[in-house]
Amino acid sequence: MPEDIPAKPVSAIDQACEPISGSRKIYVTGSRDDVRVPMREINQSPTPLSDGSFEENPPVTVYDTSGPYTDPDVTIDVRKGLAPVRQGWIEERDDTEQLGDLSSEYGRRRANDVATAGLRFEHVRQPRRARAGANVSQMHYARQGIITPEMEYIAIRENQRLQEARDSGLPVHQHPGQSFGAAIPAEITPEFVRDEVARGRAVIPANVNHPEIEPMIIGRNFLTKVNANIGNSAVTSSIEEEVSKMTWATRWGADTVMDLSTGKHIHETREWILRNSPVPIGTVPIYQALEKVDGVAEDLTWEIFRDTLIEQAEQGVDYFTIHAGVLLRYVPLTAKRVTGIVSRGGSIMAKWCLAHHKESFLYTHFEDICEIMKAYDVTFSLGDGLRPGSLADANDEAQFGELRTLGELTDIAWKHDVQVMIEGPGHVPMHLIKENMEEQLKWCHEAPFYTLGPLTIDISPGYDHISSAIGAAMIGWYGTAMLCYVTPKEHLGLPNREDVKEGIVTYKIAAHAADLAKGHPGAQMRDNALSKARFEFRWEDQFNLGLDPDRAREFHDETMPKDAHKVAHFCSMCGPKFCSMEISQQVRDYAASQEAQADPEQGMAEKAAEFREQGSALYRKA
Amino acid sequence: MPEDIPAKPVSAIDQACEPISGSRKIYVTGSRDDVRVPMREINQSPTPLSDGSFEENPPVTVYDTSGPYTDPDVTIDVRKGLAPVRQGWIEERDDTEQLGDLSSEYGRRRANDVATAGLRFEHVRQPRRARAGANVSQMHYARQGIITPEMEYIAIRENQRLQEARDSGLPVHQHPGQSFGAAIPAEITPEFVRDEVARGRAVIPANVNHPEIEPMIIGRNFLTKVNANIGNSAVTSSIEEEVSKMTWATRWGADTVMDLSTGKHIHETREWILRNSPVPIGTVPIYQALEKVDGVAEDLTWEIFRDTLIEQAEQGVDYFTIHAGVLLRYVPLTAKRVTGIVSRGGSIMAKWCLAHHKESFLYTHFEDICEIMKAYDVTFSLGDGLRPGSLADANDEAQFGELRTLGELTDIAWKHDVQVMIEGPGHVPMHLIKENMEEQLKWCHEAPFYTLGPLTIDISPGYDHISSAIGAAMIGWYGTAMLCYVTPKEHLGLPNREDVKEGIVTYKIAAHAADLAKGHPGAQMRDNALSKARFEFRWEDQFNLGLDPDRAREFHDETMPKDAHKVAHFCSMCGPKFCSMEISQQVRDYAASQEAQADPEQGMAEKAAEFREQGSALYRKA
Repeated sequence: MPEDIPAKPVSAIDQACEPISGSRKIYVTGSRDDVRVPMREINQSPTPLSDGSFEENPPVTVYDTSGPYTDPDVTIDVRKGLAPVRQGWIEERDDTEQLGDLSSEYGRRRANDVATAGLRFEHVRQPRRARAGANVSQMHYARQGIITPEMEYIAIRENQRLQEARDSGLPVHQHPGQSFGAAIPAEITPEFVRDEVARGRAVIPANVNHPEIEPMIIGRNFLTKVNANIGNSAVTSSIEEEVSKMTWATRWGADTVMDLSTGKHIHETREWILRNSPVPIGTVPIYQALEKVDGVAEDLTWEIFRDTLIEQAEQGVDYFTIHAGVLLRYVPLTAKRVTGIVSRGGSIMAKWCLAHHKESFLYTHFEDICEIMKAYDVTFSLGDGLRPGSLADANDEAQFGELRTLGELTDIAWKHDVQVMIEGPGHVPMHLIKENMEEQLKWCHEAPFYTLGPLTIDISPGYDHISSAIGAAMIGWYGTAMLCYVTPKEHLGLPNREDVKEGIVTYKIAAHAADLAKGHPGAQMRDNALSKARFEFRWEDQFNLGLDPDRAREFHDETMPKDAHKVAHFCSMCGPKFCSMEISQQVRDYAASQEAQADPEQGMAEKAAEFREQGSALYRKA
Repeated sequence: MPEDIPAKPVSAIDQACEPISGSRKIYVTGSRDDVRVPMREINQSPTPLSDGSFEENPPVTVYDTSGPYTDPDVTIDVRKGLAPVRQGWIEERDDTEQLGDLSSEYGRRRANDVATAGLRFEHVRQPRRARAGANVSQMHYARQGIITPEMEYIAIRENQRLQEARDSGLPVHQHPGQSFGAAIPAEITPEFVRDEVARGRAVIPANVNHPEIEPMIIGRNFLTKVNANIGNSAVTSSIEEEVSKMTWATRWGADTVMDLSTGKHIHETREWILRNSPVPIGTVPIYQALEKVDGVAEDLTWEIFRDTLIEQAEQGVDYFTIHAGVLLRYVPLTAKRVTGIVSRGGSIMAKWCLAHHKESFLYTHFEDICEIMKAYDVTFSLGDGLRPGSLADANDEAQFGELRTLGELTDIAWKHDVQVMIEGPGHVPMHLIKENMEEQLKWCHEAPFYTLGPLTIDISPGYDHISSAIGAAMIGWYGTAMLCYVTPKEHLGLPNREDVKEGIVTYKIAAHAADLAKGHPGAQMRDNALSKARFEFRWEDQFNLGLDPDRAREFHDETMPKDAHKVAHFCSMCGPKFCSMEISQQVRDYAASQEAQADPEQGMAEKAAEFREQGSALYRKA
């Protein structure tokens, strides 16, 4: 047995296998049986009325990233990995072939390495690659007018099922949004998905070697997504820890996960993560390439990098961060910055460029990279190697110079029908955030923007998830399609499980705030349901409708632990006499009866007397 | 001895008496010796240079709300309270008189109540009130053209001492802000303070019976302030806990504290808090008035309320939240809301209005209230009793109707030279936040806005400090002068010490983000210093320059506990080989030498060779 991975699912993963409090997994089936889209249905209790009867509160259905882990009907075995739900779709397209062996030299070496045999995932699949001359990217299909099962799946998944919700009686009203040019339809159709992907305004990261994923889309006309970074480093962490961080992150809402491992066994760690991940996995291949040259950036070559891309593409990585925009002429522009170059990939490439005094192989071989991307359908995440690492460096010439180059590279990738998203900052004060989005839309032709934060202040170590959530919510509103989370440990250390959860929930807040502000149809439904539950003292419903039912319940129980308090018509903040919610219900009853009066003036006086008589009948309604 | 307060400062208060990590208290003296403005000076270590010498990093001076507690030269005794630093100024104005007895009947009763003798603060001062016909408000002085010592104190306190910082060598450069009509001068002068107060655009909450405070100002042309709510309730909490929550909150940056106690002994709790508070204290007097009528809102009378105002004014409360804008005609507008009326004060007044079918005594006696306010210099905080309690109810007619009434009341208060701020929401999606600020500026004539959040989503119980910090940062940027914090326990329970700290630091982030975006001169100085420290691996400086040095250090030490790591040129995220900061320094050295070359092309080639030779000399600089 591998040393790091016990025979049974480890307890950390077991934990991710519990259904989320108060909800159950449901599946919505599409035009074919194998398009089976998972959702999470949050149950609600009825509202007791004053006449002794009850008003039903229909369940609320929400987007679910937690994968099969939260389905009690699925048996999880991390040694075997998840079921390959996309396998049939990939096979029936008949444009890929299963290879007899790995194409990457390094991959073959690792596969045959006896020293790491104990760490190896047991059920490695034979890799799959486009047949000669074929392009297997979702963008390519989209441009041919083909609606793939992935696209249909996504359309079902993205819809808030507004009509169903309205029919069931949920309060669906919502403020009109302000979308800054985003054009979000009332209903997401498979054809809309196809069109957005064809246009390059959205990407579906879905490597043919990652058939386990539940397809998802990243684009500003869809729900704002959240990415979680995990990854061991030379200093700490183990395979088991990384796999369980992934299941933990998706449980709380991570839409994609980046494996940023830099330590030993990254090849093996990645295999375990991919085989167990229901969400797309991204990597920064240059990290591993650098490992292969013992950390000496100058020794990096196109050949080593190319082999790394193929190695990872054949494992199933869905998107690659590639810092191809770090051009020689931009590097000196960073010299006078307060914090120089803070992107790891960016600084590696800058070092290489300076040492060789020429443009990097990422830039000069960009079309070769495109050839690899389209053979496996790996999506570009064009890295912002020169992103600002402090407010002082925000929106400077180095940053925007690189952004313009990323726009040029987008054009090249699109020529190959390869999917592209663009990475963004970083550290930016609030009033300079909008310019980032505007420049990105302008230079990168509306390719999805994928930003890290941005942090709006520099002086919050230990709380950078919060200072960055402010920037993330704003840039999400302006049009960023995916927000890369920041944990409380940012700048200080490697996040543990609790940090990962804190980071994810914080970024779900930012993403949801953005969706509401943009006016995504139905986005406010869950808020309305929770607010109604809050107003009606349905405590359990209030917890369960929240982003983290466990914490809400725990916090409530700290002050009022008794079960009876869960139905109390007051809470610990105000005590029984002062509950504004309760008083407010009386106002409502009063206004209702007032409306029923023919003569409002007389009615008011009468009702005033009646109201006084009823005095402090605080628990009348329930 | 009182049961709740031990003879020695309790350990929780002892904790607040430690100087904040890495910094020391300094005082800047004004035109007279007793204008002695406290500040916190954060020390920095020097940067080691490659030639073996050191570059000095000057200390960074920051605004300090922690009061005498963090001054090791001051002996703290909570039984005696803080030194009355404003006493001399109040006396020399010679427009107040010390009263022989309390003017409030209830106050006298409590003072003579043997049952609560054990809880009573021992050193109660005789109350002070304006001489007949006098108006002792800071606004009144300002309108007479008088610059009070309080105003001079504030001018010194608000200045970022930009010139001194520049002279000392701190990196002071900053992005120009976007101020939305705020007009922040390069230097805050006492005359500017006076003018802003006279204009009503800023308030100085400073009751003549609260001589212990270190004067501060609230207005959109000054630094954005943060308020912390504390207060026991009928359900839980004790006097000692509340006093220590206050010292704890001011330690982490609370600019004012609201005592929202609703339990027993609120009179006594308030006395302890006031006598020990270096920051202005606000209350909602209707809470206590309601206690006096056993929680039956309909039984409230002007006489009871008036006595409560006087009772609290003579204790020294600096600002009163008064929900005088809840008019009868607005109440039915809330009936169809999802969450009705969520303000405690608002719902109490609505209940009263309905029961009596007339406008509340807060509204009908508003000028009488003004007479009380100006006799003690209590500032109005006009409450938004009809603020939205959910996104669904944001920016509705009830809310904006009340806001317009608050504008009318502002005019009346200003006629009496009484200081006013206006309270704001609540729950508002991002794209509707700006309208709140614009409406407030328009209808309330630029009186300072003081908002609770707003929360930008409803589905984050347990994390509402974060969803509200997003809204708070934005509305602060748009011009809100003070942000009322929200803790992680919002909607769920009473905050404990850790929640108070979490709430404060979160709101310091929002306030600072707002100051940066508005372009407060010098606001970016601390960020620059921290970023420079980060770039230079000065870990201790990075911790100490942050908003919470203790947490930053703790988080760092979780992964890399050894002292040696505090000077390591890498951190646990990337390990020694991958440090982008380190590589970036090499780029900088390189660019510098490149610049020195006459022929850049040749220079580059030469340097490339030289750079390669030096290879991976990663620790060259230090």
